[in-house]
Amino acid sequence: MAYQELNEQTILDYIKTRPSLSDQLANLGELTAKEVGDGNLNTVYILESKAQPGQGIVIKQALPYLRVLGEDWKLTRERIRYETESLRLYNQYTPGLAPAIYDYDDEMSLVAMEYLSQHLIMRKALVERQQLPHFADHISTFMANTLFFTSDMYLTGLEKKELQARFINPHLCKIQEDFVFTNPLMESPENQWNPLVDDEVRRVRANGALKVAAAQMKARYMTHAQALIHSDLHTGSIMLNPADTRVIDSEFAFCGPMGFDVGALLENLILACLSHYGHTDDADVRAAYQEYLLQMVLDVWTQFAAKFDALWQDNNRGELAPNAYWDWPGGQDAFADFRRQYILEILRDTAGFGGCKFLRRMIGVVSVWDISSIENTAKRAIAERKAIRIGARWLLERHKINTIDDLIAIVRTEMART
Amino acid sequence: MAYQELNEQTILDYIKTRPSLSDQLANLGELTAKEVGDGNLNTVYILESKAQPGQGIVIKQALPYLRVLGEDWKLTRERIRYETESLRLYNQYTPGLAPAIYDYDDEMSLVAMEYLSQHLIMRKALVERQQLPHFADHISTFMANTLFFTSDMYLTGLEKKELQARFINPHLCKIQEDFVFTNPLMESPENQWNPLVDDEVRRVRANGALKVAAAQMKARYMTHAQALIHSDLHTGSIMLNPADTRVIDSEFAFCGPMGFDVGALLENLILACLSHYGHTDDADVRAAYQEYLLQMVLDVWTQFAAKFDALWQDNNRGELAPNAYWDWPGGQDAFADFRRQYILEILRDTAGFGGCKFLRRMIGVVSVWDISSIENTAKRAIAERKAIRIGARWLLERHKINTIDDLIAIVRTEMART
Repeated sequence: MAYQELNEQTILDYIKTRPSLSDQLANLGELTAKEVGDGNLNTVYILESKAQPGQGIVIKQALPYLRVLGEDWKLTRERIRYETESLRLYNQYTPGLAPAIYDYDDEMSLVAMEYLSQHLIMRKALVERQQLPHFADHISTFMANTLFFTSDMYLTGLEKKELQARFINPHLCKIQEDFVFTNPLMESPENQWNPLVDDEVRRVRANGALKVAAAQMKARYMTHAQALIHSDLHTGSIMLNPADTRVIDSEFAFCGPMGFDVGALLENLILACLSHYGHTDDADVRAAYQEYLLQMVLDVWTQFAAKFDALWQDNNRGELAPNAYWDWPGGQDAFADFRRQYILEILRDTAGFGGCKFLRRMIGVVSVWDISSIENTAKRAIAERKAIRIGARWLLERHKINTIDDLIAIVRTEMART
Repeated sequence: MAYQELNEQTILDYIKTRPSLSDQLANLGELTAKEVGDGNLNTVYILESKAQPGQGIVIKQALPYLRVLGEDWKLTRERIRYETESLRLYNQYTPGLAPAIYDYDDEMSLVAMEYLSQHLIMRKALVERQQLPHFADHISTFMANTLFFTSDMYLTGLEKKELQARFINPHLCKIQEDFVFTNPLMESPENQWNPLVDDEVRRVRANGALKVAAAQMKARYMTHAQALIHSDLHTGSIMLNPADTRVIDSEFAFCGPMGFDVGALLENLILACLSHYGHTDDADVRAAYQEYLLQMVLDVWTQFAAKFDALWQDNNRGELAPNAYWDWPGGQDAFADFRRQYILEILRDTAGFGGCKFLRRMIGVVSVWDISSIENTAKRAIAERKAIRIGARWLLERHKINTIDDLIAIVRTEMART
């Protein structure tokens, strides 16, 4: 069917025309439709069962409002396709950790997926100081599986190039390239920051070594096609409850460096940790939850590294360095050393990319809700100043990082500094 | 016109049907056609003017013999397209250093290009101990221009991704991935080596650190999309005379690491240098020409690095780190430091990739003519043993390399070793 913009009425007729949705709809009975998107680029509808509240489907449709701008409408349509295709790969490689995809309609620029009525955006859960006993396990599995199974250690050379060609995602990449790496560190009209940390911001923008390091990480983001990465894996792209975790919003997916995903996640956990300087006045309660989040950072990395290594040992079917290559007395030690060095490189990239992302959130175009929701600007500045300093150190010291403890030690030092 | 295999008769009628060739042909008068290819994958015809010998055109057509094998016929057709498209880019970015392209016929899997009747394959010139006073200047310009103008320092993000998508070259990449990096270092039936260096070969294949290093370079080749590289830039892919230099046979071109091209070239110059242990008996004559080639290695790198840096300063139009990013007091020093570190990384990649390539030529499926043409196996073993040791050291010591002198010092030490 040719593109037409749906609304809360027409969507109910549209879904009846889609055979791939019939099984799903059969169980739901009569539905209500409610539009819940922010309306800039997409509309998002929740279609909920009247008889069974909480049961339903979600439909996301790209909006053609920007069609006049040509490129932007293309970008909007592309987003839906990249998101759908990557979510399908997640469902294949790491079942249960992303929403199920029910239907995709290219002409209508529309995707139908699982309704997560029992899940909360992770940022909110972290500001509420929730306990999330399974999160480190879930997200480390998500990252280990999605990154390993789309790398040259699992895919053949031809399979990997085919994946890479499917996910050349130039417009979405450009957004990250400019707004994560370069623009925050130079004069750019969209940059925003708290005037109370103006001295820190000026120091960052005139720090030659820091800017060289950020440019090096940008070059790595632009050229280092290790695996299919989510490329926006912050705590706003995760919906969860204490028992269940789902990764959403993967429209930035492309073949890039693994450490960009790990770095985004750890940096966002630490921003949540710092945000409690503003959200939690009781010093003991605050310290306890901050400690809980630092332990989570440690657990996420440790479990990720162990799972990634185990997957590699058990599924070395790609052509990078096949088992026959390691087949001599002493070969297993060399293979273990190769894996160890590979994973250490992911950790150092985590430091470099995470470092850039701390800075962009504090001094670039868009902060994170955890921090921006602190209304008292003086309290917010405490968190922001520490975030800038941690980011700068992660980035500058990345080549000296050998363990996750090294990264966390920088966080602790800057948290203790007055 | 639908595909048909041409021959020395039909090709003369075929060219009259091609409007893009009419200008070229108008000047040549009556032509003779001679097939000069090796007949495995392509036929190559020289169409030469009867009135003006040395004037003519070259036509290369992919052979369909392997059509029964499906994938291989596809590979053969792809070769012609990748070669044509990359040669056209060379003509754009570095005019005069590749053969002119006159015509390309996709259905016929055929390309028509300049006839280089006054040029010799460089390997032959080096074995003949020719003086090549302009080569370092020419090839350093070729590498600096082709690599810089296809990088993120010159292309915008969107332009670079478009280039990358056009040059996803999976089948040709796979040949290099397997035969340069992995197979020579493990048991693989196609490997060949001189039994007189068997001890050296066994040591290499059981050297854990060396195999880890080679796997790391392979990972970098597979994922590090810095620029459009030739990807087979050895002295058999260069035709020249003392005044003129042309790069040919670019069918392996894809977006990969710059150091792979520089490494291939320098390694082949050094193999030519070592080959004179077999080709030149007079010790003084030999030492003088070897010294000439080591000086050439120094000149090629030094001029490449200077030209690449100058191009970057003058043409920083890409989005990696635009001029505005370096616009503060002290910014020019930081920009210079970024360029210096970037070029140092190319040098270290040159060591790593060059090292792998020394090894593959000595113990993999195919040697180089400079060495394989030494009939006395004992003399050949002198060159081969040194080449293996130099390759292993370039690869293992790559992170410690800071200047081209460091790389040449390894060559001199191993040449002096008895």
